[in-house]
Amino acid sequence: MAYDQNNIFAKILRGEIPCNKIYEDDYVLAFHDIAPKAKVHILVIPKGEYTDIVDFGVNGSADELKGFYSAVAKIAAEQGLTQDGFRSIANTGSFGGQEVPHYHIHLLGGERIGPMTSL
Amino acid sequence: MAYDQNNIFAKILRGEIPCNKIYEDDYVLAFHDIAPKAKVHILVIPKGEYTDIVDFGVNGSADELKGFYSAVAKIAAEQGLTQDGFRSIANTGSFGGQEVPHYHIHLLGGERIGPMTSL
Repeated sequence: MAYDQNNIFAKILRGEIPCNKIYEDDYVLAFHDIAPKAKVHILVIPKGEYTDIVDFGVNGSADELKGFYSAVAKIAAEQGLTQDGFRSIANTGSFGGQEVPHYHIHLLGGERIGPMTSL
Repeated sequence: MAYDQNNIFAKILRGEIPCNKIYEDDYVLAFHDIAPKAKVHILVIPKGEYTDIVDFGVNGSADELKGFYSAVAKIAAEQGLTQDGFRSIANTGSFGGQEVPHYHIHLLGGERIGPMTSL
């Protein structure tokens, strides 16, 4: 899938749409989800143009991957998620329920998160 | 949390317990979950001794992170998950529902995966 420059996270990265920012560095931007699915619901996105976890894993550089996943860890700790735990979710495509075609990881915590699936 | 050499995934990596292996390389081992929560339910684990996504993100090298997440992408594609999509989940600690203290990512697919939380 070609990257869509008009997806909402691209617009947030370009500053065209505001977000409730938590953290930013050279590699990532993190902000609160506008429709939280748990007491704490954070989105972390890479600054590079990657559509999903597959695209990022294949085409992201080792430095970008290190930058992204170390920032995820740092954000989880800073936001108080590491003491009691949290769930991280990346949705890919239709079956995964992906809503925005820019790679993002959901961090859900602040309370016990239920079963992994409702199947 | 110090790494526990006796966790079940450490035993699988040492060959002390069998698994239904899907893929293996220098960085990862992937196998079918023994209690699948979707039509396809794969676990991918790094070969290094990391307790969770935070430990791996902070202490894993850039090469290890690239090796792991590129393998996740490769496995998802080879197992037919990328066409219709899938969900990847990493549980950390109690609130996340982590069951084994060796970092692992769940790949759930083969059917539409429901809401991210049952909250």
